Amino acid sequence: MKKLDGMVLYDGGRAPNPRRVQIFMAEKGLDVDRIQVDINRLEQRSDAFTRINPMQRLPVLVLEDGTAIAETVAICRYLEELHPEPPLMGVDARDRALVEMWQRRVEFGFLMPVAFAFRHEHPGAAHLESPQVAEWAQVNRPRAREFMEFLDRELASRPFMAGERFTIADISAIVGYQFLKPARIPFPEDLVHLQRWYGTVVARPSVAARGDG
Amino acid sequence: MKKLDGMVLYDGGRAPNPRRVQIFMAEKGLDVDRIQVDINRLEQRSDAFTRINPMQRLPVLVLEDGTAIAETVAICRYLEELHPEPPLMGVDARDRALVEMWQRRVEFGFLMPVAFAFRHEHPGAAHLESPQVAEWAQVNRPRAREFMEFLDRELASRPFMAGERFTIADISAIVGYQFLKPARIPFPEDLVHLQRWYGTVVARPSVAARGDG
Repeated sequence: MKKLDGMVLYDGGRAPNPRRVQIFMAEKGLDVDRIQVDINRLEQRSDAFTRINPMQRLPVLVLEDGTAIAETVAICRYLEELHPEPPLMGVDARDRALVEMWQRRVEFGFLMPVAFAFRHEHPGAAHLESPQVAEWAQVNRPRAREFMEFLDRELASRPFMAGERFTIADISAIVGYQFLKPARIPFPEDLVHLQRWYGTVVARPSVAARGDG
Repeated sequence: MKKLDGMVLYDGGRAPNPRRVQIFMAEKGLDVDRIQVDINRLEQRSDAFTRINPMQRLPVLVLEDGTAIAETVAICRYLEELHPEPPLMGVDARDRALVEMWQRRVEFGFLMPVAFAFRHEHPGAAHLESPQVAEWAQVNRPRAREFMEFLDRELASRPFMAGERFTIADISAIVGYQFLKPARIPFPEDLVHLQRWYGTVVARPSVAARGDG
């Protein structure tokens, strides 16, 4: 593990976005000083944290000069530039565009519907999402399923979301997949290519580690 | 104007995402062969176009080797790498992270609520969004307003969304702002810093041009 000096990561345990950065850093062999912010206790809405990220969201990477980088993908991009190996966001202009395309497809087509299904109907999310719009949760479940069927067809001909390499697009898909249960969306046991993909990625040390520690 | 050889842009008129790429290219002084896809006639759902982008969304940039780059920000990133000047996505690692942070904040905090308000309640969007969830439109209007108030406070101390330069974050905010009316969200006449920003950016030739020709 290579320690990032002079930076602090405001981390958020097992929540999807903190998890994405945790897996990304573990894949790169990076570690950093962390401050845990308890999302269940809404610590991200405290005055102190709101000054760091007015969006009241986690994670946030604070640099030595005080610059606060919020937004998961922005943090990942910064780390990718500083520590390019192994590449998780593409290897040349064309590949970087395709990784970004797949990252965004997974984010909008899968991660968001799963998050909406959870946040708008789960009693445990009532303090996070106000008001909860149950109909919006219900509309999003079949969308998440349809997108998984699309991914299954795509994964018939390649090992990972964006091609031959594990990338940030896989990381986004992993956290979406692992959020199916709280979102009350059935695991896609029948989608054999997606299952094969998940079996491969979940075995990676970066994913198996809790990383919130 | 510098013509991009060997590429074709599948374009979509005045819709928000096609507009973002049009403005981005105009800022760079780039032009490209275009194929217009009529969103109002749902041409993006044809079999032919679905083979190019299974997400049935515009725009898509198709390269000489047949690679189809979908997703607005992926297209912009590809063009930024090929034609770095003027920089619209940051000038160094830290700045690129901050531009990405602001681009995403604007996208999730402004562009999406405005799009949800339009798509889930406007009769003219019934063919695009099925089912329309009126309550979801209604929940998103005050969120768009709150985000504009946040932007207004931020713009009190800098000229553009991500700092001293015009960037892709401004482009995303422009198309959100210009979509307020169909989304039935009042223009924020009272937010003086946001108004000053909009007055400046709307006067840029890239924004004033229709760009869908």
